[in-house]
Amino acid sequence: MRMYDLIVKTREGQDLTRDEIRFIIEGYTEGSIPDYQVAAWCMAVYFRGLSKEVTAQLTMAMVDSGETLAWPEFGSELVDKHSTGGVGDKTTLVLVPWVASTGVKVAKLSGKGLGHTGGTLDKLSAIPGFRWELNRKEFIEVVEGAGLAIAGQTGNLVPADKKLYALRDVTATVDSIPLIASSIMSKKIAAGASHIVLDVKVGDGAFMQELSGARLLAETMVDIGVKTNRHTVALVTNMEQPLGFAVGNALEVREAIATLQGKGPKDLTELCLALGAEMLLQAGRTADLETGRQLLIEVMAEGLPMKKFRDLVQMQGGDPGVIEHPESLPTAEVSKDVLAARQGYVTKIWARQIGLIAMDLGAGRQRLDDVIDLAAGLEILVKVGDRVEEGQTIARIHGSTKSAVKAAHTQVMEAIRIDDEPVAPLPLLLARVSR
Amino acid sequence: MRMYDLIVKTREGQDLTRDEIRFIIEGYTEGSIPDYQVAAWCMAVYFRGLSKEVTAQLTMAMVDSGETLAWPEFGSELVDKHSTGGVGDKTTLVLVPWVASTGVKVAKLSGKGLGHTGGTLDKLSAIPGFRWELNRKEFIEVVEGAGLAIAGQTGNLVPADKKLYALRDVTATVDSIPLIASSIMSKKIAAGASHIVLDVKVGDGAFMQELSGARLLAETMVDIGVKTNRHTVALVTNMEQPLGFAVGNALEVREAIATLQGKGPKDLTELCLALGAEMLLQAGRTADLETGRQLLIEVMAEGLPMKKFRDLVQMQGGDPGVIEHPESLPTAEVSKDVLAARQGYVTKIWARQIGLIAMDLGAGRQRLDDVIDLAAGLEILVKVGDRVEEGQTIARIHGSTKSAVKAAHTQVMEAIRIDDEPVAPLPLLLARVSR
Repeated sequence: MRMYDLIVKTREGQDLTRDEIRFIIEGYTEGSIPDYQVAAWCMAVYFRGLSKEVTAQLTMAMVDSGETLAWPEFGSELVDKHSTGGVGDKTTLVLVPWVASTGVKVAKLSGKGLGHTGGTLDKLSAIPGFRWELNRKEFIEVVEGAGLAIAGQTGNLVPADKKLYALRDVTATVDSIPLIASSIMSKKIAAGASHIVLDVKVGDGAFMQELSGARLLAETMVDIGVKTNRHTVALVTNMEQPLGFAVGNALEVREAIATLQGKGPKDLTELCLALGAEMLLQAGRTADLETGRQLLIEVMAEGLPMKKFRDLVQMQGGDPGVIEHPESLPTAEVSKDVLAARQGYVTKIWARQIGLIAMDLGAGRQRLDDVIDLAAGLEILVKVGDRVEEGQTIARIHGSTKSAVKAAHTQVMEAIRIDDEPVAPLPLLLARVSR
Repeated sequence: MRMYDLIVKTREGQDLTRDEIRFIIEGYTEGSIPDYQVAAWCMAVYFRGLSKEVTAQLTMAMVDSGETLAWPEFGSELVDKHSTGGVGDKTTLVLVPWVASTGVKVAKLSGKGLGHTGGTLDKLSAIPGFRWELNRKEFIEVVEGAGLAIAGQTGNLVPADKKLYALRDVTATVDSIPLIASSIMSKKIAAGASHIVLDVKVGDGAFMQELSGARLLAETMVDIGVKTNRHTVALVTNMEQPLGFAVGNALEVREAIATLQGKGPKDLTELCLALGAEMLLQAGRTADLETGRQLLIEVMAEGLPMKKFRDLVQMQGGDPGVIEHPESLPTAEVSKDVLAARQGYVTKIWARQIGLIAMDLGAGRQRLDDVIDLAAGLEILVKVGDRVEEGQTIARIHGSTKSAVKAAHTQVMEAIRIDDEPVAPLPLLLARVSR
C-alpha cells in the first residue's frame, strides 16, 4: 500500500477501505508516513469530504492509536457530555451536580481552554484547593463516594489526534467536518464513554458559524456513534451571544453556584435542563425527555444539586466555604461598569469578540503555556432583544490593571450593538439530532 | 506574512498578490517554509486553480529562484521548442536540423527521459561519440560554427521547480494546470528563450488525457508567455498512438535520419512541418506560416536538412558515418516480429502501454538512475485506421533477452486492437493557441 495512491483516491472522491484508513493513521502516528503527504491528504479531505463509513473507520483507527480507558467500576453505562466550545460555557459545572443529584453517577473528564473559549478545568481551579488532577484510583473513589467527579484526562489517549490536529492547525485543514467529528468522537470513545450527549454550538462565538454546518457536524458525530455502538445524541445550540452572563473563571463559578440554587441566567438553566434530560434518558434513569426534565426541576426545588456540588468540591479537596461565600472566590483588582451610550434595543452581541476581550484580560490562553488570571473576565448583563436605557449598566469588566480594563471598556462598547428597532430574543435550542 | 494565511486564501479561491507568491516560492526554496505547508497549498491549488495573473507571477518567482541564462551571442531572437512529452517523440532530432537548414540558428537545450516517455539526450547518446554535455563556450561555438546545437542544460536553473516538483510528485499534486504550466514555462524562460513554440500532446500516451485539459494547459502557457513578454505559440497534437513508428533510442535516431531524407513517417513529417513553420515565423525568417511551410519543403528537396544533421553530429563529436550507415547504430541482440492474429482494421493503439513496454525492454527509465539499453525498443508498423491481413507484420520488438522479448510480444498484441469495422485515421493537429 502506498500513501500516494491513497491521496489520489481521496482527491478523486473515492472511498478508502478500513485497511487503507488504518494504514494512514498508524503510519502517521509511528512516523513512517511523512507530514507532507498527510498534509496533502487532509487538504484533499477538506475539499472532497469522507463518507460516513470512512469517517467512522477513521475515528476507530484514531482510538486504536493509543491507550483506551474502561470503567467497569461504574457498570456498563457511562454517560459523557461534550460541548464543541463557546463563550461563557459553564454548563459542565452546573450539569454534573444537577444530574448526579437525581441518583445517576456522573464521572466527567474535562479539558482546559484555548483561544476565545474557556475550559472546565480552568474554571474549577478558581475554587481554592480544588484538585482535578486525580489518578484512576482517586477518580473512582470520588465517584463511588460522592456520586460525581470532574477530572483531567490522564494517559496517552488518541496520540494520532494530537499529531494530526497539530498538523491541521498549521495547514489550514482544521475546518473539515469529518476531521472535526472524528477528532472529537475518538477522544470521547477512548476515554470510555458508552453514551454521549453532544452540545454542538453554532454562531459567532462557536467553531461552526452556520446552522447547516453545525447540523452536518452533529449528524456526522451521531452517525459515528451509531457505527461504533456508542449511543449518541446531539443538540445544536445557539452561540450567537455568550451563554449566561459571566465570561471568566471565578465569575463563571459564581454564576454556576447561583444557577445550582435556581437563581441562574435563564438560557444557562434551560440548556442544562435540555442536556440533563438527554443524559438521564441515555443513562436509563428516565423513560423520556419530559420525565427527565420534570425530575431535574423537582430535585432543584429540593436543593439537591447544590448539595451535590458541595460534595464534589469537598471530595476533590476544595474549600466548600465558597458556596456560602462566593465572594471569597478570586476577585479582580480593578472593575469597571460599561454603561449604555444610548437607549434602544440590544440587537447584536459579538460573542467571539467578547471571548477574545476576556482572554486579553487574562481569563483565557492564547497559547497552551499562558498563565490564567482566575479573577479576570467580563459580565455581559444584557441579551439580544433586551430594552436598555441610556446610562444603564450593560456590562462589567474585571481585570488586573486600569489600562487593561480601560482598553477592554472600549472594545466591549463596540461588541454590544444598540439600535432603535427591537429584535426578537435569540432561540437557544436549534436542533436535536439522534438515530 | 504567514504561510498559514496564504493557504487559507488559496483554499478560499482568493488571488494571492505578487509579494505573497514570492514569499511562498522564496521561503520554500530557502527552507523557511516547511514541506507540509507547501503540500497543503499545492493541494488547495489543485482544487481551486490559480488565476492567469497569479500563474504568471508564480512562473517569474520560480525563474528568479535560481540562475538564468542569456544568449546575447545569438542576437535577440532565440526560438525554443518544447514538447510536453509523448511516446516515439523524436521531433527535436528532425526539427532542429530542418529549421537550421533554412538559415535560422537553432540552439536547443534538451533533457532526458523518464517513465513511458523518452528524452532527446538519450536518443542522441545512441550516436557513437556524440557529446551533449557542452559548456557554455562550447555550445556557443557549435551554434556559431554549424548553425545549430543540441545540449543538456547546465547551471542551477529554477531550483524552486526542482524542489516543488519533487514534493508534488509524492503528494499527488502534479496534475494541476497552473502548476504544470508554471513549471514548464519557468524552465524555458530561465534557459533564455525569447520565443517559445509549444507542442502540447494529448491522449493516452501523453500527460494530458483530454482535449479540454490540453487546450487549457496550452492557453495557460501562452498566457504566461504574453504576461512575461515571451512570444509563445502552442500546437495541441494527438498522442493517442505513438508518433512515427519507432519507440526506443537507436530506433528513433534511424527514423529521424529517414525523415530528414524525406522518407519518414507521414505523421512525424507533418508535425515537424507544422512546428517548423511556427519557429520560422517566430524567428522572423518568414512572414506567415504557409511561406515557412513551403520553405521547409524546398530545403528538404535540396537535401539540406540531412547535411545540417551531419554538421551537428560532427561538431558535437559524433560519428557522421551513422548517417550513411544507420545499421551501425546500436542493434538489439534479439528481435521478433509481431503478426496480426486476424484480418481487419486497427482501431486502437494504447500509446502509454507501448511506452511502458519499451521502458521495460530497457529503452527508458523507471527511475532517474536507471541505465538505458540504447538498442532496445519497439517498431509499431501500423496506424489507427490501417487495414491489416492475418499474419501481416504489425510490429517488431527489440530487446536484450529472449524472455524479455517474449513478454513484450504478448503485451504488444494486447496493445494493438484489430476490429471488423474500419475507423477513420486519427487527426494529428488538434488546435493552435496563440495571442
